[in-house]
Amino acid sequence: MNQPSTGAALASALLNPTSVALVGVSDDTSKTSGRPLQYLRRSGFAGAIYPINPNRTTVQGERAWASLAALPEVPEHVFVLSPTSSVVETARECARLGVKAITVLASGFSEAGAEGLAREQALRDLCAASGLRLLGPSSLGVVNPRNGLMLTANAAFAEPDLPVGKVLVASHSGSMIGSLVSRGKARGVGFAGLVSVGNEVDLSIGEICMATLDDPDIEGYLLFLESLRHGAELQAFARAARRAGKPVIAYKLGRSAAAAEMATTHTGAIAGEDDIADAFFKDLGIARVGILEALLETFPLARRIPLESAPKRVGVVTTTGGGAAMAVDQLGVRDVVVEPPSAQTLALLDQAGLPCTPGRVLDLTLAGTKYETMKAALDILLAAPEFDLVLAVVGSSARFQPHLAVKPIIECARHAKPLAAMLVPDAPEALASLTAAGVPCFRTPEACADAIAAVFARRQPGPPAQALPADTPDQVRTLSEAQAYGILDQIGVPHAPAALRRFDDTGTPAPLPFGFPVVAKVCSAEIPHKTEVGGVLLNLQDEQALAAAMTTLRQHLDDKAPGVACDEVLVQPMQKGLGEVLVGYRVDPEAGPIIMLAAGGIWAEIAKDRSIRLAPVTVETAREMVTEVNALKPLTGLRGKPRGDLEALARTVSALSQLALQPALRVVEAEVNPLLILPEGQGVTAVDALIYQA
Amino acid sequence: MNQPSTGAALASALLNPTSVALVGVSDDTSKTSGRPLQYLRRSGFAGAIYPINPNRTTVQGERAWASLAALPEVPEHVFVLSPTSSVVETARECARLGVKAITVLASGFSEAGAEGLAREQALRDLCAASGLRLLGPSSLGVVNPRNGLMLTANAAFAEPDLPVGKVLVASHSGSMIGSLVSRGKARGVGFAGLVSVGNEVDLSIGEICMATLDDPDIEGYLLFLESLRHGAELQAFARAARRAGKPVIAYKLGRSAAAAEMATTHTGAIAGEDDIADAFFKDLGIARVGILEALLETFPLARRIPLESAPKRVGVVTTTGGGAAMAVDQLGVRDVVVEPPSAQTLALLDQAGLPCTPGRVLDLTLAGTKYETMKAALDILLAAPEFDLVLAVVGSSARFQPHLAVKPIIECARHAKPLAAMLVPDAPEALASLTAAGVPCFRTPEACADAIAAVFARRQPGPPAQALPADTPDQVRTLSEAQAYGILDQIGVPHAPAALRRFDDTGTPAPLPFGFPVVAKVCSAEIPHKTEVGGVLLNLQDEQALAAAMTTLRQHLDDKAPGVACDEVLVQPMQKGLGEVLVGYRVDPEAGPIIMLAAGGIWAEIAKDRSIRLAPVTVETAREMVTEVNALKPLTGLRGKPRGDLEALARTVSALSQLALQPALRVVEAEVNPLLILPEGQGVTAVDALIYQA
Repeated sequence: MNQPSTGAALASALLNPTSVALVGVSDDTSKTSGRPLQYLRRSGFAGAIYPINPNRTTVQGERAWASLAALPEVPEHVFVLSPTSSVVETARECARLGVKAITVLASGFSEAGAEGLAREQALRDLCAASGLRLLGPSSLGVVNPRNGLMLTANAAFAEPDLPVGKVLVASHSGSMIGSLVSRGKARGVGFAGLVSVGNEVDLSIGEICMATLDDPDIEGYLLFLESLRHGAELQAFARAARRAGKPVIAYKLGRSAAAAEMATTHTGAIAGEDDIADAFFKDLGIARVGILEALLETFPLARRIPLESAPKRVGVVTTTGGGAAMAVDQLGVRDVVVEPPSAQTLALLDQAGLPCTPGRVLDLTLAGTKYETMKAALDILLAAPEFDLVLAVVGSSARFQPHLAVKPIIECARHAKPLAAMLVPDAPEALASLTAAGVPCFRTPEACADAIAAVFARRQPGPPAQALPADTPDQVRTLSEAQAYGILDQIGVPHAPAALRRFDDTGTPAPLPFGFPVVAKVCSAEIPHKTEVGGVLLNLQDEQALAAAMTTLRQHLDDKAPGVACDEVLVQPMQKGLGEVLVGYRVDPEAGPIIMLAAGGIWAEIAKDRSIRLAPVTVETAREMVTEVNALKPLTGLRGKPRGDLEALARTVSALSQLALQPALRVVEAEVNPLLILPEGQGVTAVDALIYQA
Repeated sequence: MNQPSTGAALASALLNPTSVALVGVSDDTSKTSGRPLQYLRRSGFAGAIYPINPNRTTVQGERAWASLAALPEVPEHVFVLSPTSSVVETARECARLGVKAITVLASGFSEAGAEGLAREQALRDLCAASGLRLLGPSSLGVVNPRNGLMLTANAAFAEPDLPVGKVLVASHSGSMIGSLVSRGKARGVGFAGLVSVGNEVDLSIGEICMATLDDPDIEGYLLFLESLRHGAELQAFARAARRAGKPVIAYKLGRSAAAAEMATTHTGAIAGEDDIADAFFKDLGIARVGILEALLETFPLARRIPLESAPKRVGVVTTTGGGAAMAVDQLGVRDVVVEPPSAQTLALLDQAGLPCTPGRVLDLTLAGTKYETMKAALDILLAAPEFDLVLAVVGSSARFQPHLAVKPIIECARHAKPLAAMLVPDAPEALASLTAAGVPCFRTPEACADAIAAVFARRQPGPPAQALPADTPDQVRTLSEAQAYGILDQIGVPHAPAALRRFDDTGTPAPLPFGFPVVAKVCSAEIPHKTEVGGVLLNLQDEQALAAAMTTLRQHLDDKAPGVACDEVLVQPMQKGLGEVLVGYRVDPEAGPIIMLAAGGIWAEIAKDRSIRLAPVTVETAREMVTEVNALKPLTGLRGKPRGDLEALARTVSALSQLALQPALRVVEAEVNPLLILPEGQGVTAVDALIYQA
């Protein structure tokens, strides 16, 4: 056996195999299983190609082999085109023979009930035991336009002249690799490879992309994702890509609840909430686009804008006011700052005899649609310190007279400051020239703004978490509130003082270490939701009332939670804050450890008013999160209202997030709700907490 | 003089003139002022064309005339290409000669300081006095591809083979008519005409479009708007277009604050808030799109979906799960309901031998990409009562094998239920076939969802308002709170009981008609903002406290508003509601009378939480508005909270909006803030109101 143990070997088996075998290939080129052979031959793939078909001596005019074992060599990569029922057996034979990688076209695995799940488990066990690497099932294959490897059953690859480029596409959806190829071709965008990953039973998007990071011809990645499944591998890849300086652009389904549900039923995967995915991408430096065509257009821009650059101000120059206004509008709705030229820049433009009307964009107008005018304006704007990116919006001249305003953009593309272009008319040739010259350029105002916003939204990844994996649900136990406070004490999250009283303590209780009035709450690891059993009594004014409350609480437990173990009551002073929030830490099954700050009380339900990051976060990042929660604005001193201690809140958010670095505490979820925000200088204090521990 | 007094005559002069003159035409076809002659000749315009140039005997090889007066006939339409300084004189000559319409290319009017404003006023006066109709200034002209009228200086019309279609484009931006032509051509979409309206000194978009409504070859309108200026004419046109059954689609700049500001500086116009514009479009039945290309793609859909249709549920069928998920996702973020097939529909599909996997969309899968499969599925879905629109999302086959899944869509296009298509790959030929067959079809998931959402969002226009025009600011006066309550009484808006006490009344005051505690507020038309002068004292417990408050208020007035007339104090009982809102009516300078319901207090500032409609509104519409304000959700009984009287709120919103039908009251703005919402069954009550009267 000679299995690919390294990333490079895996990448070679997937994208540059010396030999491929097609199991179950059809003689009929109109059938799905007949396509790969036809495509491979048409594209001139130089490696050995072995058609396998036990029922025929020839396939599509070529010699067919009866079995994999009958071949004169062990093929490096096997594409299994045969029906679901025979896939496991074929995979076993591949493992026996020492095949490095197989791609499975058939569906009917995890999405097909118990039988399908059993088949999938068999494949998984086989891969684990043998070292065989498997792409799919439900994979439409792998394409490498650089060497003619058209190992795909996707009808879209009947496409002649596949454009070669610098980005690798990896997609959960097999049909999308075909659609991206056709759209890329129309747009002058080529690919270094396209992989349909199918159900990711063995190889996941993260691992596949990671394996190709050393390929010098792959300079960036485009991901089409249905979910964040295999998030840990995706995360590891994103961090490595960041270190390698290779940008990652992602389009992910599931922005709406309806589509999230579809992704779930489609593949059997669980789809998370979209703002968690958003935090995942941003915190890992992945540019997440929201417009399909921006997936094809963003890479050249992502390559030019450093991840750590700040501030992020766009200067706009145009020959068409209306066209530029569309771009500015779209940037504005995405909160990207369009900076007007400074007085000094306006003076320089004036000296150069260029129009310098005051305003947010530099409008050269129709009359300024000349090579010299645009060139001189670009030279000045690219040197102006107030811009971090210059966007040139070109009007109708781009279609028939690219020498006027498009040519100077291409000439200025090598300037130290990034320059991008948006073309208002349909101007495919100008777009192709700009693209070929490596200039970030956009066909629509929406894709333009989406790409810029996505690239600007990327954040420098923080330290990787060292938390427990999320998939240990069996062992998870709930802590009582008192135990939860013990954890909060260890990580530095302030909480209200608490005293415990036992139900079975018949003597005179020790005096409380704080004054009345107080609240009394049943305290048990088995009662995570205390109010549901009538387990909270508020505003007790003295010892007598507290004693009566103990009796009432015991009664409530006997009525509503008979037989549930609960020996004690937790007593705390009644406290009131200027506001309250929910601070939550959890190990998300897809995104890994996350920290959330959300509006407390009824507002959490009314408006999705929350900020999420991958955990851990610094206090500085936590301060950003505080500014992102609308419900906290009244506590900033707005309209003369008293200020809350938002600095203490930020410290507390950061402190709770450090759970991601403390695997020894074995916390998989911690929710502080409510956390009271006291007046400025007086801190914050948790008055309830729920912690799940593995 | 023979001026176009009717719409038909105006439309003829603009789009079908028998003769045109080009004043200031250049011999040099590379110059802006040389283009129209070249374009007119190239396109074979059949009317008479008169080049006017006093300095030359020939222009571009044709006879040139020295002046308009020297022509053998009075031209129906004159395109003035000469510089700004000579425009007014040329316009005067046109008026003298009896020219019906002139188009002015030059800029340098309202946007160019005092001199420009004076020029603009001269043109306006001339039009008013003579009946001459003027397009522009800053107009790039008029194009009618049906008769070769290429009366434009836009370089984009060098375009050969201009596509002819059924929609008229009217645009504030001159460059955009060129960009839309090139994009339309690439997309297989043609035009019945394109008009660059420039600064709308005389002819506005509304009037121009209105004039063409009887043209049987114009079946719809595409508007590219920088603002809602000349809103009344736009509104009249929209209502007439609705009656004529001709859909109007609009793209309007100014969704973001930055672009709204640009529209202002660009044309000198005032840009309103975008949610007012949004209400304007929806309430007039105009489909407002947010994606540029949707402007070109929405018309066939708008034509198929009746304005009054409800509910609005989309059924989706696809050959590509990933592609359909994009469309569903984009529909979901726009709150469009994607309905899953009913059990009955699934049974019918099953009987027909079609795949009927449960789920939100009907996924025929790659294997179902066959003519018979798609045709049978469409027949069943189009007959299914649970769908109001069927959307077919076609994968890679659309590019090379349109006979598989695209052909059946074209065949089903005449079904009574609307059918639309979205193509996932780049498939220009399939799009062109679908477009030619009148099938609403979309190139991207974003434009698809944008168009569907825009068409569904249209509302049946209510009765036109009969309010005062907004442009009478000089005569506006503020009412005192007591006077404002008088108006509220007349229109049926409930308010707290109020008693007046005069500062100069030294006798024993009459007892209050309500109990203590009370609030005392200075009451004067000259003090619209009472708290700013310390003019409100709360929670007065008895007559003595009230008497002391009178003294304090007098003191505050003397200190903070010396010399301001204020003779009395308004006394009301202290009242508390479950919540409070702001209800505002005003005559917006662009949109006309509007009614707004907004979150009260600090939330109004924190989150833009408001609902707007054109006034007047019915109680039914006001109920919809109540559901659109997030801050009112706690009053619906959420989480066991007490319910507020939201039905009384709806009645009150509707009542205030009736000001739009009562011009005799002369109210230009009325703000009830706060309006307290009492518990269910107890109504609502205004505890302050500010009214401006003309």
